[in-house]
Amino acid sequence: MLKELVFVGLGLHDEKGISLNGVEEAKTADAVFMELYTNLLPGFSVERFEAIVGKKVHLLQRHNLEEENGALLLNAAEKGKTVFLVPGDPLIATTHVTLRIEAEKRGVKTRIVHGASIISAIIGLSGLHNYKFGKTVTVPFPENFSETPYNVIAQNKKLGLHTLCLLDLKIAEKRFLTINKALTLLSEIEQKRNEEIITPTTVAVGVARAGSNTPTVKADYVKNLSKHDFGDPPQSLIFPGELHFMETEALITLADAPETLRRKAK
Amino acid sequence: MLKELVFVGLGLHDEKGISLNGVEEAKTADAVFMELYTNLLPGFSVERFEAIVGKKVHLLQRHNLEEENGALLLNAAEKGKTVFLVPGDPLIATTHVTLRIEAEKRGVKTRIVHGASIISAIIGLSGLHNYKFGKTVTVPFPENFSETPYNVIAQNKKLGLHTLCLLDLKIAEKRFLTINKALTLLSEIEQKRNEEIITPTTVAVGVARAGSNTPTVKADYVKNLSKHDFGDPPQSLIFPGELHFMETEALITLADAPETLRRKAK
Repeated sequence: MLKELVFVGLGLHDEKGISLNGVEEAKTADAVFMELYTNLLPGFSVERFEAIVGKKVHLLQRHNLEEENGALLLNAAEKGKTVFLVPGDPLIATTHVTLRIEAEKRGVKTRIVHGASIISAIIGLSGLHNYKFGKTVTVPFPENFSETPYNVIAQNKKLGLHTLCLLDLKIAEKRFLTINKALTLLSEIEQKRNEEIITPTTVAVGVARAGSNTPTVKADYVKNLSKHDFGDPPQSLIFPGELHFMETEALITLADAPETLRRKAK
Repeated sequence: MLKELVFVGLGLHDEKGISLNGVEEAKTADAVFMELYTNLLPGFSVERFEAIVGKKVHLLQRHNLEEENGALLLNAAEKGKTVFLVPGDPLIATTHVTLRIEAEKRGVKTRIVHGASIISAIIGLSGLHNYKFGKTVTVPFPENFSETPYNVIAQNKKLGLHTLCLLDLKIAEKRFLTINKALTLLSEIEQKRNEEIITPTTVAVGVARAGSNTPTVKADYVKNLSKHDFGDPPQSLIFPGELHFMETEALITLADAPETLRRKAK
């Protein structure tokens, strides 16, 4: 019997974010596992997903994969074709890379069926140019806050590059860092330091619910954006570096940026 | 009647890389357009795709979108719901951002249904950590070659960051820059300059056919990689910066890197 572990991306937002290839893999699997804790899929229903693939799905929690090292999944993969469904593009979460290495070490072949990732979705929605993004960073909750995100934004800005900031989330606790709160936390660091990285007149772009039919994409000065209502999670934030004039046009037309942004373009 | 232009990602490799949401959008559209020139989908069949969505697809060429500014597409979108199918995640190609802006300026609402992108797929396949990638760069064909890709790799390396190098392609002419050739071109720049960025013992990772069931992922020293047979396109290249020990493990287990790589890890 084929010993195989196939990582399948669920893509974004709901149970129809998966690719046709991903559905076929689940339909032909001996066992199907899923996790829904590394990224939020607000419109996802396990029941509707099970109806699509015509089989029962075993939902794994963080402790199954981290403390127990994915033993349930790896044992199943040693017996037959096992599909592991993961929000977004499955191997972008570093925790699953560890699982993939462990499977290969046990002699289980692995494959990836990719899904739409929050990373490329946010960049696409913003209208900014992909090749102008520097290092990505996650902004943590206040209790874990550090100056790292600020430093990454500063380093990228000095190189003229944009920064994609993912905002921390704890799905099991229904806790999501908001764009408003992230801007406040970052502005507090600005005030402690003698730099001009995130001032009230710095431009930023907030993106909420990427992958849904009703995303909110709003570019504005930090002073306005920190009060803007972005609605439900998930939310993310971009700090642009130098803007090409086509990127300025995109922010004005697609992200409702103020017309005064044109003065900042190069 | 609804005037709407929906950009739908085809994802990777074949006609089943599209999401279930994407198929639904095409099925309910008044007109369906597609382009297949911004990224190579080696297993894609227009006929099989038309059978899946149950309607005829208008295939657009580069001149339809660039010289003619997408007039065919925009005129259709002014009459009813129009779907535009694009390889990968649709708005990662900057040329389509321009089209989206033009549609909005004409009063046509736009939406995006995301697809798996080559960018996150390559990062996932490599086992390297997403948040350690710096700026992405495209390595051009010899006739358009410049020192830009070398400079981007050098800048990222100095910051300890990985560089994703997309390799140039001209799909209509069936021309694809290979990993082998890109390494040769980059090594020629190295020889002209007094730096140690891409030496024969620098580690790089080649990825071919991301999104297919038979991708080649191979990490090795440049001197070996420049002779490795990666098979059919599309191909891409990663120059790692500083490696975390888990990344080294991933390269050895998932990308067949030499065991001697462990000595380079931090």
